[in-house]
Amino acid sequence: VVRSGNEDVADLVRRAGEHQSAAVARLISLIERDSPQLREVAAALARLPGRSHVVGLTGSPGVGKSTTTSALVAALRASGRSVGVLAVDPSSPFTGGALLGDRIRMQEHAGDDGVFIRSLASRGQLGGLSAEVPQALRVLEAAGFDVIVIETVGVGQAELDIASLADTVLVVLAPGMGDGIQAVKAGILEIADIYVVNKADREGADLVARDLRHMQTLGAGTSSGAQALGRDSATAGWEVPIVKTASSEGQGIDDLLEQIDRHGEWLTSSGSLHRRRQHRAATEIEAIALGEVRARFARSTGPAALSAAADHVVAGALDPFSAAEQVLDAL
Amino acid sequence: VVRSGNEDVADLVRRAGEHQSAAVARLISLIERDSPQLREVAAALARLPGRSHVVGLTGSPGVGKSTTTSALVAALRASGRSVGVLAVDPSSPFTGGALLGDRIRMQEHAGDDGVFIRSLASRGQLGGLSAEVPQALRVLEAAGFDVIVIETVGVGQAELDIASLADTVLVVLAPGMGDGIQAVKAGILEIADIYVVNKADREGADLVARDLRHMQTLGAGTSSGAQALGRDSATAGWEVPIVKTASSEGQGIDDLLEQIDRHGEWLTSSGSLHRRRQHRAATEIEAIALGEVRARFARSTGPAALSAAADHVVAGALDPFSAAEQVLDAL
Repeated sequence: VVRSGNEDVADLVRRAGEHQSAAVARLISLIERDSPQLREVAAALARLPGRSHVVGLTGSPGVGKSTTTSALVAALRASGRSVGVLAVDPSSPFTGGALLGDRIRMQEHAGDDGVFIRSLASRGQLGGLSAEVPQALRVLEAAGFDVIVIETVGVGQAELDIASLADTVLVVLAPGMGDGIQAVKAGILEIADIYVVNKADREGADLVARDLRHMQTLGAGTSSGAQALGRDSATAGWEVPIVKTASSEGQGIDDLLEQIDRHGEWLTSSGSLHRRRQHRAATEIEAIALGEVRARFARSTGPAALSAAADHVVAGALDPFSAAEQVLDAL
Repeated sequence: VVRSGNEDVADLVRRAGEHQSAAVARLISLIERDSPQLREVAAALARLPGRSHVVGLTGSPGVGKSTTTSALVAALRASGRSVGVLAVDPSSPFTGGALLGDRIRMQEHAGDDGVFIRSLASRGQLGGLSAEVPQALRVLEAAGFDVIVIETVGVGQAELDIASLADTVLVVLAPGMGDGIQAVKAGILEIADIYVVNKADREGADLVARDLRHMQTLGAGTSSGAQALGRDSATAGWEVPIVKTASSEGQGIDDLLEQIDRHGEWLTSSGSLHRRRQHRAATEIEAIALGEVRARFARSTGPAALSAAADHVVAGALDPFSAAEQVLDAL
C-alpha cells in the first residue's frame, strides 16, 4: 500500500530492491523537484552501491531510438538480465507526451517484472536533461537493475548530459536524414562509445558508416572535448565500433549487445568506470549547487529587483554587466 | 587601423555606427568571453538606443534556414534597409564551422556595406546560445542596422534563447522531415510569431501547413509557456500567420517580409515591444549574474573541493544534495 504523506522511504527502497515496479515508480515520484521527501530519498539511496551498467542512447529524431531501445531490452531479457529504462524528451519545455507513440511501442514489455520503463518529459531550466534524471537513475541503480538504458533525443545540451551520466554511450544514426546529419555527427563524434547505424536495410546505410569512419580518422587525437567530459576513450585505447542494426527487424541487436558488454568489461579493466562515475558525481553536485544558488537568487532579490535593473538597461542608463553586479551585490 | 591592445572603443563604436564592417567585427571580437575590454564596450553600447527590428529565425536542420535568411537579406536590401546577420550554431560544443557550407551561400552579399554577417559557432556552457550572442546583438544595434536577423538551429535551449532575444520569431519548417517533426513542432508552437513553411514547392507542404493550423487550434488559450518567456502574442491578439516559401527560388519572400513588417508594427502599437525588450534585458542580466556566480564558485572552491565531494558520493558516504550543500557552505 502506497501512502501519500509521510511514507516509509526505507521500506520503499527495500521493495524497489525486489524490483517491485510500484515502489520504483513511487520513489521516482518522490525525487521530483520540490518533493518534500527528496532529501530523505537521496540520503537513503546514497548508501546503496550502483552496480548497474548505465547505457545512454541518443540520436536525432527519426533514427529509431525507441525501436532500438525496445530491441535491446528484449535481447537483455533473453540473456537473463533485468533492465530499467528512462526515456527522456528534452525537446520541449512546455509539452509533455510528445513521444507517446514511441512509448506505446514499448508496452510489449509490460507485465515483465525484470523491466521497468519510465518516461520523463520535462527538461531542466538550463536546457539539457532535467535535474530529476540523475536522481531517477539513482533509484533504478538502487533497485539493482543489471542494465539501465537512458534514452534521449540527441539535441544540444541533453547530448552532453547523457555523456556525463552514462557508462556507455550509444549514438544512433540512420540513412536518409537530410543535410542536417553532418552537423549532428560533428557534435556527437566525441561522446560516442559505440555508433549504431540503424535502418541498415535501407539505402545509404553504408554511406553513413563510411562517413563515420572518415570522421573518426579526422577526429583522431582531438579528444580534448571528450576529456573535458571525463571521458577518455581515445587515450585509453577504446576504438569506437560501428554496429549496423535494423532494430525493427531485430537485426544486429546481438552484435550491439556484444559490443556493449565488451565496452563494459573495458570500462572496468581500464579503470575508466571509476573515473566516469567520479565525473558524474562531480557534475551532479555542481548542478545541484548552482540550482540552489539560482533559488537563493530568486528568493533574495526577487523578480522586482531584476525587473528594475532591466528597466535601467532598456533605458540605456546601465549596461547589463553593471546591472548584474548590482543585483548580485544586493544578494 | 585596428590596434591590438588598448583600442579606442569610442572610436570603434562611432565607426560601427557608420556601418564600417571592420569596426563592427572588431567590436564583436571585443565582447567575446574573457576579453579585457568587454566591460568597456558594454558600457559604451549601453547608452546607444536599440532601434533595430530584431528577427529570430529557427528551425530543424535541413529546413532551409540559411537559404531563407539569405533571401530575406536580399529582399530587405531591395527595400533599402540595412541588415545585420548573426548565424549561431549551438549544435556542437566542440566543433566550429559545421555550417560553413551554409555560410558560403551567403557570400552573395559580400562587399555590400548595408549587410554584415557574422557566424558564432560556440555555445554556452549551460546549453543554448553562448553569452556572446546578446552582446553581439547589442553591437549590431549600436551599428544602427535597420533589421538584425539571428539565425539558429532550433534545438533545445537555443530555441528558447532566441525567443528571449528577438522581437519577431520566425519558425521555419519544411515537408518531408520524418517522424521527428511532430516533437519539434510541439516545442516551437508557442515561441513562433510567424510560421514559415519552406520548400513549399515540394510534396507535403500543404500537410505541414494543415498540421500547424490544427496545432494552433489545440494550443489556443494555453500560452502560459509563452507568457513565461515575456511573450504575449496570444493574449494581445496577434494571430500567428503561416507563410509558404520556396526560399531557394525566392518565392514567398515578399509575403514573408510583409508579415515581418506587420508584426513589427503590431509590436509597437500593442506595447509588446517594450515588454519584450524589458524581458530580454532581465534574462540577460540574470544570465550574466549566474555566470559570475559560477566563476566565483570555480575560483573559491576549485575543482579539488568538488572532486573530493564527488569521491564521497561515489563511495556512498554522502548523497549529492548534502555534498552540494557542503561545497556551497565552503564558498
